[in-house]
Amino acid sequence: MAETSQNVETDATRNAKHAEKMRKIKAARDKLMESKTEEKGLIVVHTGAGKGKSSSGFGMIMRCIAHKMPCAVVQFIKGTWRTGERDFLEQRFQDDCIFVVSGEGFTWETQDRARDIAAAQAGWERAKELIRDPNIQFVLLDEINIALRYDYLDIDEVVSFLLSEKPPMTHVVLTGRNAKEELIEAADLVTEMTLLKHPFRDGIKAQKGIEF
Amino acid sequence: MAETSQNVETDATRNAKHAEKMRKIKAARDKLMESKTEEKGLIVVHTGAGKGKSSSGFGMIMRCIAHKMPCAVVQFIKGTWRTGERDFLEQRFQDDCIFVVSGEGFTWETQDRARDIAAAQAGWERAKELIRDPNIQFVLLDEINIALRYDYLDIDEVVSFLLSEKPPMTHVVLTGRNAKEELIEAADLVTEMTLLKHPFRDGIKAQKGIEF
Repeated sequence: MAETSQNVETDATRNAKHAEKMRKIKAARDKLMESKTEEKGLIVVHTGAGKGKSSSGFGMIMRCIAHKMPCAVVQFIKGTWRTGERDFLEQRFQDDCIFVVSGEGFTWETQDRARDIAAAQAGWERAKELIRDPNIQFVLLDEINIALRYDYLDIDEVVSFLLSEKPPMTHVVLTGRNAKEELIEAADLVTEMTLLKHPFRDGIKAQKGIEF
Repeated sequence: MAETSQNVETDATRNAKHAEKMRKIKAARDKLMESKTEEKGLIVVHTGAGKGKSSSGFGMIMRCIAHKMPCAVVQFIKGTWRTGERDFLEQRFQDDCIFVVSGEGFTWETQDRARDIAAAQAGWERAKELIRDPNIQFVLLDEINIALRYDYLDIDEVVSFLLSEKPPMTHVVLTGRNAKEELIEAADLVTEMTLLKHPFRDGIKAQKGIEF
């Protein structure tokens, strides 16, 4: 019984800490919003188990290139199925869009946690430089939510950086399923992609143009 | 009371008709699926009130261009906010992607229903040609769900065409909120974009790169 009540207390402490943390994020966000003009750089999150989180990020990159807005992509998941976007941007738009892959190690397949963490951290360091760069107006952090979910990156550091160091007019888009609550709280625009129907259930494999 | 029971009967008839229609769509879809191989052209729907329906469609177009898959876009809503994609594709990728705007009349602003219907119909006729074209592997019907919702196009005709005349390997992506049930039933892959948080509520206007 003593142990149970200690657990309850621990849960209560954890809940209180969480509530306090969320309150602080909200306060920082409210402060940021006070300074808002008609236009401002947004923190945008695409999450959920459905399709379109990354591809709409890339659609937005295409819009930026169309509008001659300098932009950048940091890919936090490396995988062969992402080479469509990578080849396209690297080969055709190297002057319009900076393209960074966060590291060799960090893929769905690897089991090497230390290497994954190092790759994610290297990607985040590069992401911070790109976000701070006053010439870059739009930064896509593709699949960063996966790195956050597994605590390869510290959610508090990421949220705090976005709220305090992102230049006011810079847009940052963060994609990946299971977006952390702290990030959703900090964001301006959050979309959840929900799967209503998926052909994999019918035995159809991932295909060019659709999935990669 | 007589009137009420008549209404009930009418509802019952309507429900039975609807059930029969859905059963037919399912049967046609099952027949299509029987012939499936590992890869097949998909009917993809992006719907819901959230962001990313069109931009992920354009991200997929970018993937197709990267993979040198000939593709096409038919825009069923014309509006100045869509010129980012249009300029980009028309100016830089006229050899990779055919770009069609369904008509001058069909915008959110117009009140001229007859003109809107004519524009939507003209777009659909062009869409059918593009889908039938054996050289084109991917067709994006951007915001067609709006035209379907207002019955500017006949849902039965569109679904029947997709199930019976789309070449087996061609992908067709249909976007727009309020996708009709018949279309969802016929589709292979359906994603609903749900809005969790939106900056317009905080007085931030639509911005380049994000919205258009």
